[in-house]
Formats: sequence, structure tokens, C-alpha cells
Amino acid sequence: MIKESRIGESMHQLAQRLYPICRSITGNGVRESLRILQEELPLEIYEVPSGKQVFDWTVPKEWNIREAWVKDAQGNKVIDFAEHSLHILNYSTPLHEKMQLEELKSHIYSLPDQPDLIPYRTSYYREQWGFCMRHQDLEKLEDGEYEVFIDSTLEEGSLTYGELFIPGEIEEEVIFSAHICHPSLANDNLAGIAVVLELAKGLLARENRYSYRFLFIPGTIGSITWLAENEDKIPKIKHGLVASLLGDPGNFTYKRSRRGDAEIDQIVEYVLEQSGKEHKVIDFFPYGYDERQFCSPAFNLAVGNFTRTQFGQYPEYHTSGDNLELVRPEYIEESLEMYQKVVEILEANKTYLNLSPKCEPQLGKRGLYDAIGGNSDSKALQMAMLWVLNLADGEYSLLDMAKRSGISFELIAKIADTLIEKDLLAEKK
Amino acid sequence: MIKESRIGESMHQLAQRLYPICRSITGNGVRESLRILQEELPLEIYEVPSGKQVFDWTVPKEWNIREAWVKDAQGNKVIDFAEHSLHILNYSTPLHEKMQLEELKSHIYSLPDQPDLIPYRTSYYREQWGFCMRHQDLEKLEDGEYEVFIDSTLEEGSLTYGELFIPGEIEEEVIFSAHICHPSLANDNLAGIAVVLELAKGLLARENRYSYRFLFIPGTIGSITWLAENEDKIPKIKHGLVASLLGDPGNFTYKRSRRGDAEIDQIVEYVLEQSGKEHKVIDFFPYGYDERQFCSPAFNLAVGNFTRTQFGQYPEYHTSGDNLELVRPEYIEESLEMYQKVVEILEANKTYLNLSPKCEPQLGKRGLYDAIGGNSDSKALQMAMLWVLNLADGEYSLLDMAKRSGISFELIAKIADTLIEKDLLAEKK
Amino acid sequence: MIKESRIGESMHQLAQRLYPICRSITGNGVRESLRILQEELPLEIYEVPSGKQVFDWTVPKEWNIREAWVKDAQGNKVIDFAEHSLHILNYSTPLHEKMQLEELKSHIYSLPDQPDLIPYRTSYYREQWGFCMRHQDLEKLEDGEYEVFIDSTLEEGSLTYGELFIPGEIEEEVIFSAHICHPSLANDNLAGIAVVLELAKGLLARENRYSYRFLFIPGTIGSITWLAENEDKIPKIKHGLVASLLGDPGNFTYKRSRRGDAEIDQIVEYVLEQSGKEHKVIDFFPYGYDERQFCSPAFNLAVGNFTRTQFGQYPEYHTSGDNLELVRPEYIEESLEMYQKVVEILEANKTYLNLSPKCEPQLGKRGLYDAIGGNSDSKALQMAMLWVLNLADGEYSLLDMAKRSGISFELIAKIADTLIEKDLLAEKK
Repeated sequence: MIKESRIGESMHQLAQRLYPICRSITGNGVRESLRILQEELPLEIYEVPSGKQVFDWTVPKEWNIREAWVKDAQGNKVIDFAEHSLHILNYSTPLHEKMQLEELKSHIYSLPDQPDLIPYRTSYYREQWGFCMRHQDLEKLEDGEYEVFIDSTLEEGSLTYGELFIPGEIEEEVIFSAHICHPSLANDNLAGIAVVLELAKGLLARENRYSYRFLFIPGTIGSITWLAENEDKIPKIKHGLVASLLGDPGNFTYKRSRRGDAEIDQIVEYVLEQSGKEHKVIDFFPYGYDERQFCSPAFNLAVGNFTRTQFGQYPEYHTSGDNLELVRPEYIEESLEMYQKVVEILEANKTYLNLSPKCEPQLGKRGLYDAIGGNSDSKALQMAMLWVLNLADGEYSLLDMAKRSGISFELIAKIADTLIEKDLLAEKK
Repeated sequence: MIKESRIGESMHQLAQRLYPICRSITGNGVRESLRILQEELPLEIYEVPSGKQVFDWTVPKEWNIREAWVKDAQGNKVIDFAEHSLHILNYSTPLHEKMQLEELKSHIYSLPDQPDLIPYRTSYYREQWGFCMRHQDLEKLEDGEYEVFIDSTLEEGSLTYGELFIPGEIEEEVIFSAHICHPSLANDNLAGIAVVLELAKGLLARENRYSYRFLFIPGTIGSITWLAENEDKIPKIKHGLVASLLGDPGNFTYKRSRRGDAEIDQIVEYVLEQSGKEHKVIDFFPYGYDERQFCSPAFNLAVGNFTRTQFGQYPEYHTSGDNLELVRPEYIEESLEMYQKVVEILEANKTYLNLSPKCEPQLGKRGLYDAIGGNSDSKALQMAMLWVLNLADGEYSLLDMAKRSGISFELIAKIADTLIEKDLLAEKK
Repeated sequence: MIKESRIGESMHQLAQRLYPICRSITGNGVRESLRILQEELPLEIYEVPSGKQVFDWTVPKEWNIREAWVKDAQGNKVIDFAEHSLHILNYSTPLHEKMQLEELKSHIYSLPDQPDLIPYRTSYYREQWGFCMRHQDLEKLEDGEYEVFIDSTLEEGSLTYGELFIPGEIEEEVIFSAHICHPSLANDNLAGIAVVLELAKGLLARENRYSYRFLFIPGTIGSITWLAENEDKIPKIKHGLVASLLGDPGNFTYKRSRRGDAEIDQIVEYVLEQSGKEHKVIDFFPYGYDERQFCSPAFNLAVGNFTRTQFGQYPEYHTSGDNLELVRPEYIEESLEMYQKVVEILEANKTYLNLSPKCEPQLGKRGLYDAIGGNSDSKALQMAMLWVLNLADGEYSLLDMAKRSGISFELIAKIADTLIEKDLLAEKK
């Protein structure tokens, strides 16, 4: 699948611009990221004030950070946030203090089994401070006094998210969400953002049947906030995907919605099967990304999580190894194509009624059928036509027809169009 | 399975009489064939005039043919309809003309891969003329002028079909149909006709629970015409089979109704399983014989297609190879037996109520049970009795009981009769 | 599984006391057995008079026996009921007569294939007399005159059964029944009695959600009598097990209720799967123990039959080989533990509602969640918590949750308790 690709390259370039920014669930990193997205997409940006009650949760204080380092006794910076945004425990409180190595170490996170990678750690809901570093560097620290400086603020402010709504022919909505709360992590943030952005650009440029809603939100608290602020919109959401982990070289993984056999589940599984690519389909479980919230029992939305390698299943997950070399243009692009294919089927997957349902209509007199019985150059087209006519009883969507007949969705949809032109088929409203 | 068989022989003799007649979807060939069937069965013969609108179709002009040949420059007949009814493109328009080989060839159908067989071709809905011949004979034709003569008529007339209705104890109907539109093709026409004829003769000679309807109709336009002319009867049709391809040596094939699990589907599958014969059960698809029309979405009747080898799956299909040597008496007879077995189960497959449903009734005091506990010569009968009593809650037909218990339908039905006699069981009405 | 066990020993000792008593479907043997059970459990003892109509049956005459023997010409007892209660055909009529060996033999039951075992035979509903003996002893009998003496009575009396009802928090009932009609057979009677007795003792000593009903009844006529006498109670019976064959060394066998997927079926199957022990689950069939009556079509109760080796599947079945050496303390005890486990899950298997069903509740602020995102010592507990919250929509019982999540019922139930304490969950009433 490795190929030269302009769209993949441009998605990767967007990831490159976003990569160094220290995002979190609130703060200027998110704002700066969303402004970059606005250059390509007319996103609305929302600010929800700290302290606002959102269901069982409260919008947290806003966190911002400018500088953070640890100096040894000689004044050398042994850890420096300026070098990598993962070096700081996300949501660390401000500090300027001297301390012995022993005490410092109790605030340091490292990965003994992956000594050359910086781990990613957060503490959103317990106020504390900390640093993350390569285990190999931690082991070089010598006893003695260290100066620790964290120039951060944790204050009343707001939670920021971006949203784009594209109205369609019908009010029923499809939702796509990407999380924007991770700092310098390429696959676990930026690849999903890039895919959703490109998908939205494509849908914005054309007329759609469904209305589409794109959310660029902090994980967990972001989706909770959005759902709490938009409860009136929830009943209109008929399908959705949470987009994450879409740039690594692994196979695709689809985690079904809690319902398990929703139309979106069937479509993604169909697209994966038809792709001929190795892939995995797994059942819903209440852990992972924001499908946790969309599929909570009061909503039980038809929202799945469509990724490449599943979270936690690649060694670079939640470390500095999840970078712009792990994520490659061709993989992001391939992911985009899969999402586009899903949308294509979703848009086309209507239910039709045969307008001449008593016996077969006479295809020949409409030029739809080879007039010489017993020989035909277009058996496949004829079979597709007969299948569509036979199953167009209002119970079968086009995808149902494709599955029952074993004929590709593309051909079924094309034949349906032909039959509509000939007044033999009409959409069931 | 090869055995001496009087009934198989007599069915084969009927096929021999019908074989030379040039049938089509209309015309005197059909009339003559039906008159032969009337010698054995009190068929009603219907004539539906050309031009009559039948759903989306129009009853076509009536076609008749008397003579057709091609002579070479020396006056030798190189093709002659008198030799084989397949030589003429069915529904060929009249013609008397001289032409060069080149032009003649554009009207000739042959099978390069099966050079010694005449193909079967029709052109019902596009007016044209043509001949069908062995490819090996086509290749011998030399350049030069040929005289082409077709003494046919294509005029206002009627479509002819035969029907027999046998009223039963209840109004609900079982339908069996055979197509009668094929000229000299033995398996793909005559075997089905012979089986349906014999089946009807048997049912006519006894009292039946269901009402039975037998149709001898031209394929496609015949079933469409019948359905259009008899729309009021359609709701009474509860079960049915389209009978075709019942004389070749291949294994049985059952193509389920569009519903897939109708009672007729379950019964045919059960009969096939119990037969111990190799067989195939396949799902409905909207191509084949008149099940296409019976299973069209507005009707969706419980009608399957029960054949030996499936159409198009034997090399002689739709050629002069489908003749009276391919079709053998023992195979037609075996097919008849399977159809009879299906009818037998259909007739007996009632639903019963246990009249003593609170605990088991005391079988012993009715002489139904060995009085010595712990020892019995008739465990199998006892078990069948207990199963029937246990499942006779009004939800299980006898076939459902046979399937759940693993006991043969025959024994279940016999035990049900015994329990009815003892006033322990009554039919659920 | 062989271990020293006080409870198993005491259950075996009960079996030892009951073993010599000649029980039948009526009579003093049953009364004496029930009196022994009353020493440990406050059983109500019921007497239903002979001649009483119970559904399709009549309570039979009461049978009692004091003495029975056959003497040879020399006055030696060649068969003696005093030696083994199986020697008499159960329900033999009284007799004192002399006869030749030939005539005697027509009243003797033996097992040529198991010559050292006495068979068990009954004749409840046909008045006759007979003896059962080892085939090897039968073969030693010499021609000559024999004196046959049976001091039995078959008279108006009553059918006796024992019952214990333990009211619970709710009126819905669980029923456990053991048959008490077999004479000296250890596995096929006494093991089941011992298990049900111990189970009842445990439930009597504590508060229960369900009401429990324990029946010690003669097989077939006993359950029919109980059901006929207690028709008003039947609708309250929601779950039940017929307990039999619980002391042999074989694997467990569960025969599902007629419904097949009732809660009791699911629970027993779950307990068996979780046990890691080899076992068999089989579908209902209308033969065996009193599940035949409980599952008759008018009642169709959710009652299964939970045994070790299935009836008729071990060589000692219904012979003198089914004795106190076949039945071992450790096996009876293991059976008890399985029954207790079933009750434990049944009691706990409620359906809950998530009280904070819109998105996930914030576990962290309740101390339910490790506050450091991305690292946790208690992933398994967290996952269980998230599953319970996600599935607590009123459609899932705890067992349903355990099955869907793959998490053990124990952990699911424990987590549910934790969430109830935190006001996040409430029972669905």
C-alpha cells in the first residue's frame, strides 16, 4: 500500500505543525491547535467555563504551561519541557523549589522496560506535579540537590473545543469525533484529527443526504461536556465513529458500538471485508476513547471506534515513540479512504420500494434485458437487477441486498439508480 | 436406485409422446400437449387473448410453425425443422428468401464448445428469425447461395394453459406448477410435467386436507398471466413447489422459497435429510423458473423449486442433448416419490393440543404403557408418546416435534393418531 | 477431589441410616424415612388418601410389607426380603403358597448380564407378586417344590410426602425436589435426599431473597399429587431443580428445563463452566425424574434435573450395586457445593439501574478510580466497574453482565455492591 500521495503528505504536514504543541484537556495548546484547523475548516470554537456542571462531572480549571525544567547542582538542565512536551506531567501545578534526588524521584515517571522512551502521564483530577523522562536518563542522575521549576497555571478559565456542523438533506446526523487533548503524540491524536479534518473538507464541498457533525474535543471530559451541552441534539445522532490511532502501520480494528449490529457497525464491517485487507472486528467494551460516553446506557448511540492498531497494542503507545516517524502519510491516507468509503455507503444505503412488485416487471421492453432468451453478455447486471427488484419490499436497505445477494454494494447501488430512472423503484420514505 | 418400474416407464412413455411436439409460450404445440395430458387428468384449458395486459406484461401474439428449412445451391436441405424442433429459433417470423452464406450465418446459433448439439434459443419479444444447428454441421456449409424458408405465423391469438383444482377439506391451497413452453427438451420440461401429472392423479383419487392446484403453464409469461388472472386466489396459496428438471441422474437440489424457512422449505429439507440421499439445499435467488414470479415481493409466496440437477449445471442443458436418453424412468419415478413424500408430510403436519396437559396422563390405565416399571419392550414407542404429549401445547407442529425429539415424522404421526383415539390429543383449530 | 470432609461424612451417615428401609411410593417405609429427616429439618408431613383423584391419576392403595421369603423343599430360605429390600417386587400382593420351580421362576426377575446384582423392579399399577434375585443364585435353584410367603398388605391408606417452605423476602419461589420412593438404592434416592436436606438446612439458617420450597416426594405419583394439591402455588414457582443421582463418582450432568434457556438453566450451566470440571449439558426430554411433571405442557416450569451420572448410564443403576460404596462422602459433598453455588447466584442475580446513566459517572471523585490516568494497579476492578455501569440499563441481570463482559459473576456482584454503596446503582424493581 505504500505509494506517493499528495493528500497523505499534506495530512502528515498538518500533523507536523501540530506535533510540538503541548495540548491538554484545557488551555492554550488546544486553542492554538484549533486555530490551525480553522485555516482549513470553518470550525466553530466553543469555550465552556471552569466549574460548569456537566452531568456527573465539573469542567476543570484551565491549565497552561510556559516553562518547566530540572537543573542539577551544576546548573545543567537534566529535564527540559522545551525539548519535549511529554516531559511534564500534564496538569502539573506550579513549583520552584530545591530538593534532593530522592524526593525528586518520587515525582518522576519513567519506563524501565522501554528506557529510551518518555512516558505520557496526566493528573487532571488530583493536583500534583511531576516530570516524565527516559529511564536511561533517570539512571544517570547523581545524588545531590536539584532545582525544580514549573511555570504553569491552574486557574478558572474554560474548556475549549471545535465543532463543525454540515446540514444535509435530512436532519438525521452522523457524528465523527477526534480527541485533541494529547500533547506530542502523533498516532494517538494527530492522525485522527487529520483524518476527520479531511473527511469534513470533502463533505463540506458537496451536497449530502445526512447532516454531519465533526467534533474536535478533549477526551472524556470533552465528550461529556459536549453531550451535556447538547442534549437536545442527541436523538438526531443516528450513526457515528470515534476516530483515533489512524496513522500507524498496523491493520485496521473496528470496535463495534454497544448495540453491536447497528447500521454503522454493518457498514464498517462490510467495508473492511470488501477491502480484502487483514483486519479485526471486536465487540464493544466500556473502555477506550469517547465511544465510552456516546455508548453510555442513557444514550446507547450507534457509535463505534474505528482505528488501525488498537490502543495499548503497539509498543510506542503513550510514549515519545508515538511520533511522526511511526505515523506515515500512506497510512493516514489509507485510513481516510476507509472513512470515506464508510460515508459513501452510509449516504447511499437507502431502502427502496419496487413500483411493479407483482411478478417481475418486463425488463426487455425497457431495454434493460437482452432480448434473446438463453444468452446474454450481461448476466451479472441482470442478476443484480432481479435481486434489487425482488428485495425492494421496503424491508431491505441496499446493504442488506448486497449481503443477501452476494453482489457488491457498488453494483447494487448503481442498478438501483438505473431502476429509479426507469420508474421501477422509489425510495421508501 | 436403478430398478424395474411400471410407473416410471409409463411416465417416460408420456415424455416420449410429448417430445417431438414443438411447444412454445403460445400456439398449437402447447394445445396439443395439453390435450395429451387431458387423456389422464381432467385439466381445464384456458385461452388468454393476445394483447391482454397482465401486470407489467402483455400477452404476446400467438406463434405457430409448420415448416422451416434451409437449402443449399444444390437444393439439399442443410437444416430442417422437421428433423428436430430445436432447429428453429423459437418465435421466428416467416420468411422465404435467398441469401449468401455470410448473411445466413448471422441468423444461425451454434455451440462451438459442444459441436454435436443443437442449442435451444428463443426470441419472444423481439421479432426476428433464426436457425439453431450443430456447430459441426455449420462448419461444413460452403459459400454460395442458400434458400431460407420459414412457414410460421405470428398473429393475434391466445396464450394457452392447463389447470386442475382439487378441492380439499380446507380452502388453503398447495400449488404445483410445471412449465410447458419448451419444445423437444426432455428433462427441462417433460420430466416435470410427468411428475406433476402423476402427483395430481394420486391426489385426485383420494380425500385431501388441503386443496391442490396444478398448473401446466408456459414459463414466465404463463405464471405472470395466471397470477394476474387469479389475484383473488393468491392469498389462499399457503405452500407450493415449481417442478422442473426431474428426470436426470443428478442429485436432488432444493431451492428454498424467498422466505427461506416456510413450512414447505422445512418439509422438503426434512424429506431430503431423511432420504439419506446426497442432495443440495440452496437459498432463494431471483432467477430460475416460475418461483421468480411466485416469490416476487408483492406475493412472497412459500413456493420453492425442487429439482434434480440445478438448471445450467448439466452439460446437456438447453441443447438437443437434453433428450429421452438423459431422462430415465427410474429417476422420474424417484422424483415423484419425493414429491409424494412432501405431500404426505404436508397433509399430516398438523398442530395438536394435549387434552390432559397437567402432568403426564396415566398411560398405563389406557393400555399405552408397559405396567412393569423398569423394564419395557417398547421404549421407543413410549418415548414418542411422551414427546408428543409434552410438546402438544399448540406451538409445535408434528414436524416441529419430530425435529426437537429426533424421532421420525412417521412415528410421531402414528403416535399422534393413537393418542387421538385415546382422547388424549385433539387438533388445534 | 477426594478429601476428608465432615459434612460429606455426615450426609453419608444419613444415607446409611436410610439405606435398609424398604421405601415405596406409599407406606411405612416412607413415613419412617421422613421421620428421620425431621430430626434435622422441620418438615411438614402430608398424607393424601388412597383413591383421591390427582389430575389424570388416582392415589393408589397403600402398600406395606413385613416379611417375604421363598423356602426350598428342605425348608432353607433361598430368597429372603430380610436380607435386602430389593428382593421383593415392590408392591407385591400377599401370598402363601407352594409351587414348583417352573411356576416360581415366572415371578422372578434377575439380570443374566450382571449375575451378582439384584435388580430393582416395581409393579405399582398392576396387582401381582414377584421376587428379584441375583442371577447366579437363581441358577442354583433345583427342581422341586418351593414355599412362597409374602406378608404384605395393599389397602386403602395414604400417600405420604414431606415438605418444607421457607418464606423469603419475595413471594417468588424456588423449588427443590428429591424422590423418596426407592428402597435400598443409595445413589438413586439417598444422595439426592441428603443434598436437598443439607441445602435446606443452610437456607433455613439465613435470610433469603427468594422463598424456597423443598419436596421429599415419591417419584411421578408424588409430584403429580403435589401439583394437583397445590395448583394455586404453581404460578409462584420461578425456578427449580430436581435432585437425583448426586453421590456417584461420575461427572455432573445438567438436563435443561423444557424452556431450555430459563434463568436456572443459564445459572447451572454457568456454575458448571466456571467449575472447570468436566460435565455435560443436555436438552430436556420427557423422561427421567419429576421434571417430567414440572415441565408438562400446562405448567412448563423452569425446572431442570441436575445430577452426576445420568440415569441408566452407570452399570449399578437400579440394582443392588447402587449401594453405600458406590456413593462416597466427597461426591455428595461436591454435589451439595454445586447446588449451593447455584442458589448463591440465583439469590444475587438481580437487575440494576445505573443512577448516573448519562456518560460515565466520575469515579475518581468517589475514590473509585486511580486518579493517575494511564497507570493503575486495579485495572480489573475498574473494568468491572465500567462494565456494570455500562450494562445497568435494566435489561441485563448480573449474570448477563458476567457473560457479556467475560468477568466472573463474583466480581460483578461485588462491584455492584460497591456501586450501590456509592449511590450509583439501584435494583430495578
